[in-house]
Amino acid sequence: MSISEIDVKTRMRALDLIRGSFKKLLDELDKSGRLHLIFPKRTLLNTIYDQKLKILLLGPDVQYRSFTDINEAKKFAQTLLMASIIYEALRNNEYPTIRDLFYRGKHTISYNSIDGKKVSENSWDEQRESDSVIRDLEVFLNILREDLLILSKEKGKVVGNLVIKSGNDIIDLSKMGHGAYAIEPTPDLIEFVDVDAEYVLVVEKDAVFQQLHRYGFWKKNKAILITSAGQPDRATRRLVRRLSEEFKLPVYILCDSDPYGFYIYSVFKVGSITLSYESERLATPTAKFIGVTLTDIFGTEVFREIIKDPHVKDTLEEITRGVLKLKSKEPYLSAEERRNFVIKAKLRDIERAVELVGYRVAEVCIGSPEYRSKIKRKEGVSGYPWFLTPEWVRELCVFFYTTSKLEIEAITGKGLRFLADVYIPRKIESRDWID
Amino acid sequence: MSISEIDVKTRMRALDLIRGSFKKLLDELDKSGRLHLIFPKRTLLNTIYDQKLKILLLGPDVQYRSFTDINEAKKFAQTLLMASIIYEALRNNEYPTIRDLFYRGKHTISYNSIDGKKVSENSWDEQRESDSVIRDLEVFLNILREDLLILSKEKGKVVGNLVIKSGNDIIDLSKMGHGAYAIEPTPDLIEFVDVDAEYVLVVEKDAVFQQLHRYGFWKKNKAILITSAGQPDRATRRLVRRLSEEFKLPVYILCDSDPYGFYIYSVFKVGSITLSYESERLATPTAKFIGVTLTDIFGTEVFREIIKDPHVKDTLEEITRGVLKLKSKEPYLSAEERRNFVIKAKLRDIERAVELVGYRVAEVCIGSPEYRSKIKRKEGVSGYPWFLTPEWVRELCVFFYTTSKLEIEAITGKGLRFLADVYIPRKIESRDWID
Repeated sequence: MSISEIDVKTRMRALDLIRGSFKKLLDELDKSGRLHLIFPKRTLLNTIYDQKLKILLLGPDVQYRSFTDINEAKKFAQTLLMASIIYEALRNNEYPTIRDLFYRGKHTISYNSIDGKKVSENSWDEQRESDSVIRDLEVFLNILREDLLILSKEKGKVVGNLVIKSGNDIIDLSKMGHGAYAIEPTPDLIEFVDVDAEYVLVVEKDAVFQQLHRYGFWKKNKAILITSAGQPDRATRRLVRRLSEEFKLPVYILCDSDPYGFYIYSVFKVGSITLSYESERLATPTAKFIGVTLTDIFGTEVFREIIKDPHVKDTLEEITRGVLKLKSKEPYLSAEERRNFVIKAKLRDIERAVELVGYRVAEVCIGSPEYRSKIKRKEGVSGYPWFLTPEWVRELCVFFYTTSKLEIEAITGKGLRFLADVYIPRKIESRDWID
Repeated sequence: MSISEIDVKTRMRALDLIRGSFKKLLDELDKSGRLHLIFPKRTLLNTIYDQKLKILLLGPDVQYRSFTDINEAKKFAQTLLMASIIYEALRNNEYPTIRDLFYRGKHTISYNSIDGKKVSENSWDEQRESDSVIRDLEVFLNILREDLLILSKEKGKVVGNLVIKSGNDIIDLSKMGHGAYAIEPTPDLIEFVDVDAEYVLVVEKDAVFQQLHRYGFWKKNKAILITSAGQPDRATRRLVRRLSEEFKLPVYILCDSDPYGFYIYSVFKVGSITLSYESERLATPTAKFIGVTLTDIFGTEVFREIIKDPHVKDTLEEITRGVLKLKSKEPYLSAEERRNFVIKAKLRDIERAVELVGYRVAEVCIGSPEYRSKIKRKEGVSGYPWFLTPEWVRELCVFFYTTSKLEIEAITGKGLRFLADVYIPRKIESRDWID
């Protein structure tokens, strides 16, 4: 009675899938006498940025994991142990988390080694190991762990003109009062009943979400308002992707203007670099970075200053040619506001930005002599392709040159009205975002 | 239209309060020629554990902050600056956060010093400074910042047979599907429309909340299920307090068995040590720690082992006499489960536990020779009075002796059914909690 119908269905589907996949393994064993798992390799080297789909994907490399190979036998056994634990949990109407899957499988195996000694070995010692095996199973079964009813903690929240069916309930997300709807860990099981919105606005910071919500932003602007409360979890990403895909809603991401905020945007848009196998279902390639940007507050003139240096101009010519074609922009903040609101970037901000856009851009643009010598050590980092667009290069050049970062709250510092009634609407109207 | 009626009322009340309080200041200036703020001192020394109310409170010490005292003039000016910013925000229908209040007030004042030099000074440089002034205003005005419509990020979630009015909406928290209701930043503005519950279960971990929710725990047990998602924020604490106070519902706290979990319980129950002025409205003195406890998994026999050592017995006599009167308990886990599920405590866990219960208990009970020498340095820490009860002393003795900690997920590792249908109900039924 308590358990929802959709969970029962999902459970059946997952059980069938696991049974079917391992049945094939046994058939193969009968036929060829070999027992091995085959699935896409989850390595950084086998992670590919698909220029057409604009997301990160696993490449063609395949992992063989054989029972009879001494180097792989333990991993093989771990994988089957985990599959059997998940299978049991599904049969028993459980909802495990990755943490308790770790506990469920943790045990010690004692055996006699070839030379007759008593040996004991743990199934796994660290959650790192059991998590890795869960990921292997996700790619082996070609299913997200959420569809195996593995739950996790969730931070994402949503409000807006959106009616959903979750479990046995119909929920109107425009009737949440001052609170919000906390997204479930299995957003694929949500049924969208009714949607009346122009776009999705994803806010990095929960506190800013609270402000915009309370101010009535989503009502005035017919927006679906979502917060990831920092680095987004899988459920939030999946929900955003579904809204984008199923209703063709534009998705705008509002983050701090610092490499951490840029990376949050990047995870929403192309996927997470270490877990690229999820991107196909979790990434939203049409998502735009709507702000805050440093060019919003410094304007774009500062970029022309930067490339006055002939060395910069030459080094970046191929890229800056694109940049110079971009529309120039007036700053949203006055010089005094800028002075009060801007925060000096730390060395680790610079280092993270170097990862995004590569060493070359950082080296020639960096405005701080103090950091210049330190980033030299980072040679060889070439940046992510999706950050090597004219818009992002301009943004990052201004970041390196001014060695400045800016929080969303600096814009609210100028007034919540300014953020809600001027900044966001104007940015969207004038298509002043970074793609 | 978008703004709720209750917010309009709250705004008016806050404006009146600020106006009234500062009017008094001006009256005093007219009368006596003196301009100073008087409010309770927010220092650790002026923080008192009220044995009768069982919460932390501010003591009788009073802070004078005078405009004409050179040592206090800056703080005085900061306090008035902050009051005026909050006042303006209230008038402008804004919902500031403590972060943007920091930005709003951040500016540089230039003036000529007595010897004619140009001097400039910042209103504040760090949020630490502006936050401290906000707290001063809370005690000066005798109001929580939430009632000044200062918002913040929120992590707390709730589901259960509870109908509330928040803003303009009536929300049925038993109809949240697989998701949950994310608590608003101003829980005092919630109106409880209907409650049909036996108790409140607060779960430290969001992932465990998700599991219990999905399993239908709160339906079967007529519970209101809440998660604080780690260290509780103010809104979650206030909501729990209101449910306890207004409906006399028992409140059970389910945390990990480690000093971090014990401290979460402590914050719910008696308040936060550094912000004791909030406890009067945020603490829930009737809250019980329901688990997980180390005596749940080791049983209580281990305590008798500990006090076999005559040194331990003598040193702790006054306390252990109470402990020996406690009911003895059989462990919930088998020896093998215990071996797989228990985690070795780290030195910092030991150190945090020493803060809770004092050096004396740790010194005589500690079972790890490796840690014994290291904690010696902590002499002088005498523990918090509310942890010096027989139940907690027994628990902490077992912690020090076994140098072990346990996560809630270890119990779910034994099966979600076990946690939901056996462990929690049995603990409540047999009143096997720590008060």
